[in-house]
Amino acid sequence: MATDAEIAAMRRALELAARGRRTRNPQVGALLLSPSGETLAEGWHHGAGTAHAEVDALSHLGSAAGATAIVTLEPCNHTGRTGPCAEALIAAGVARVVYALPDPGTKEGGGAERLRAAGIDVEAGVLGDEARAFLDPWLTARELDRPHVTVKWAQSLDGRAAAADGTSQWITGPVARADVHRRRAEADAIVVGTGTVVADDPALTARDSETSALFQAQPVPVVIGTRAVPPSARIHAHPRTPIVHATHDLAAVLDDLFDRGLYRVFVEGGPTLASAFLASGFADEVLTYIAPTLIGGPRAALTDIGVTTISEQRRFTITSVDTLGDDLLLVARPASGAPSPSATEGEMS
Amino acid sequence: MATDAEIAAMRRALELAARGRRTRNPQVGALLLSPSGETLAEGWHHGAGTAHAEVDALSHLGSAAGATAIVTLEPCNHTGRTGPCAEALIAAGVARVVYALPDPGTKEGGGAERLRAAGIDVEAGVLGDEARAFLDPWLTARELDRPHVTVKWAQSLDGRAAAADGTSQWITGPVARADVHRRRAEADAIVVGTGTVVADDPALTARDSETSALFQAQPVPVVIGTRAVPPSARIHAHPRTPIVHATHDLAAVLDDLFDRGLYRVFVEGGPTLASAFLASGFADEVLTYIAPTLIGGPRAALTDIGVTTISEQRRFTITSVDTLGDDLLLVARPASGAPSPSATEGEMS
Ligand SMILES: NC(=O)c1ccc[n+]([C@@H]2O[C@H](COP(=O)([O-])OP(=O)(O)OC[C@H]3O[C@@H](n4cnc5c(N)ncnc54)[C@H](OP(=O)(O)O)[C@@H]3O)[C@@H](O)[C@H]2O)c1
Ligand SMILES: NC(=O)c1ccc[n+]([C@@H]2O[C@H](COP(=O)([O-])OP(=O)(O)OC[C@H]3O[C@@H](n4cnc5c(N)ncnc54)[C@H](OP(=O)(O)O)[C@@H]3O)[C@@H](O)[C@H]2O)c1
Repeated sequence: MATDAEIAAMRRALELAARGRRTRNPQVGALLLSPSGETLAEGWHHGAGTAHAEVDALSHLGSAAGATAIVTLEPCNHTGRTGPCAEALIAAGVARVVYALPDPGTKEGGGAERLRAAGIDVEAGVLGDEARAFLDPWLTARELDRPHVTVKWAQSLDGRAAAADGTSQWITGPVARADVHRRRAEADAIVVGTGTVVADDPALTARDSETSALFQAQPVPVVIGTRAVPPSARIHAHPRTPIVHATHDLAAVLDDLFDRGLYRVFVEGGPTLASAFLASGFADEVLTYIAPTLIGGPRAALTDIGVTTISEQRRFTITSVDTLGDDLLLVARPASGAPSPSATEGEMS
Repeated sequence: MATDAEIAAMRRALELAARGRRTRNPQVGALLLSPSGETLAEGWHHGAGTAHAEVDALSHLGSAAGATAIVTLEPCNHTGRTGPCAEALIAAGVARVVYALPDPGTKEGGGAERLRAAGIDVEAGVLGDEARAFLDPWLTARELDRPHVTVKWAQSLDGRAAAADGTSQWITGPVARADVHRRRAEADAIVVGTGTVVADDPALTARDSETSALFQAQPVPVVIGTRAVPPSARIHAHPRTPIVHATHDLAAVLDDLFDRGLYRVFVEGGPTLASAFLASGFADEVLTYIAPTLIGGPRAALTDIGVTTISEQRRFTITSVDTLGDDLLLVARPASGAPSPSATEGEMS
């Protein structure tokens, strides 16, 4: 059982965690308490290559003998660019360790066991839900070993993104567009291909779609493609500095975004880039905004996703169907190993 | 007020109406009652060019002086291939006319007024709901001046009907397919293009999709296109004799189907024919079965529907969204003169 002082200290540790920069490493906070519950030192993880939160806190003290360490994440047990935190806590002589969330890593796991083996009293799960909510995007990215990717597009009922002459304003209505802006604000990065930048010169901000007022949270705009982004492009006026990746290597782009702590990536197209994300298996969630219109013709919202025969079609599970004004929003996730339905006769028979 | 005997006679008249062949003319039944309520004669409309129901009933009697005529549809007031029924009833000396449904036609309307002007007692709306339900498909077709057309297709979420190599079995699942069979059974005709006959050799029956047992009601199979239907094609084994129209003139085809009393037409594709129906404005209802899969590539469920720029996109109103197993069914109707939403900025901005 954690004491009230320990719970209060954990709440403070979560605040400290949020001070750290978001990178590929988790944001972690730590406190050292005296046996009577007074704060001896505070620390947090400042970013890759720097001391972990516990070690940062320890560094502020001459001795931590008999102290209690409060940490938002289970102390690690591996030697990376910094030594294992479990060893550092043992060496510093702490008597008790209280942490919120178990370390989900395989390499790092086992810190609690190592501490217990050294005779230290260990308490897990204090404010675990709060810590999980705080680290949720990182936990997801960590599990995927890359950012979580949502691929979004707007289409007519028959899957077109534009008319034959390329015109596409508007297919979906204002309610659907407002929903896109809200979801942009929840993402860390918003990604488009150079084709969209050249064709539409989008602002890529998250904003109130009626007043155009920018939301507080703004995703970092990311452009992928080898063509130059024009110096006059509107994304240069974005409140966050744009990232431009002159490549088609999506794995490398996602790796870089993960390094930068951009865990939630919102891919907004166009058709070529959205299809490339789907073809490469990097779509964890698909948002299809469907307008009640028919367009026909050559301009499909998705191009080639690498499916040549029907058994290769990519199966999804529709997790929600919502009406947004006149439009529909279908949210779908890749079906986990679901086989295609078995065939006994023709589709049209 | 109609008497009990008159109401019972109207029920009988509706049965008689159903004996008539379905053609471009409505099916109508009639009885002549004595003043004491006994049946003097029965009649019904046997089909285009033959006597109308009232005249058919009168033909069985020497005199109808003082009789009551019970008719499911307002007696007509125009001279077509047969004389106006109102005049025939007046000439026969009937004292009273009871009918169920007003004649929706402009040319034919006015029969009741003509009768009243001749001093005949007229009672309207007896079993009107039953008569309307019975004639509903004809009333709709009559209003359209052609059969009611439903265009159905199955597609992936991204609007594809097949993979790049043409394989398409299966996109939608068993629940969706069962729904298609139920709806086929409600149609009078099921229409495909020669492309589908050549590619899939469909049976075009309405049946229990598990046991393959044929439903009682079977739509007439109709094939449109100039290519020959192979003598071995499965539609030749259909319980109804197939109709083959070696033309691309959809208006002419619909005219012929209307003449044959096929008021509810279910167009099942393929992509070329479905698109031609949409392009020509002959789609009163659209059924899109959407499978939760992505396919990409060249095989769209609709091809060209005559839209070249976005302001020409065809707007629909989605009237229902249903989950059928893993699939969705969207039912939509053409939006009545709804303007496209006005544009103020790019779709992707
Ligand atoms: N309906 C919608 O939701 C929606 C959304 C966005 C845009 N749009 C429309 O889409 C149109 C632009 O279409 P688009 O397909 O050309 O745009 P796009 O997908 O934004 O850009 C395509 C470009 O992305 C680059 N790229 C980066 N990684 C790639 C990879 N792995 N594979 C292939 N290409 C990669 C290539 O650029 P480089 O050649 O420079 O290397 C490629 O030409 C515009 O008209 C826009 O209005 C519609
Ligand atoms: N996803 C679905 O719901 C669905 C449904 C049915 C079929 N399919 C698939 O669709 C494929 C066949 O596609 P399809 O487009 O060739 O088949 P289709 O639409 O059945 O047939 C096309 C043919 O229809 C004739 N036609 C009649 N009126 C026409 C008009 N007004 N305009 C143009 N053509 C007219 C032409 O035949 P002539 O050249 O003979 O004159 C044309 O080549 C098959 O692979 C089948 O499996 C999918």
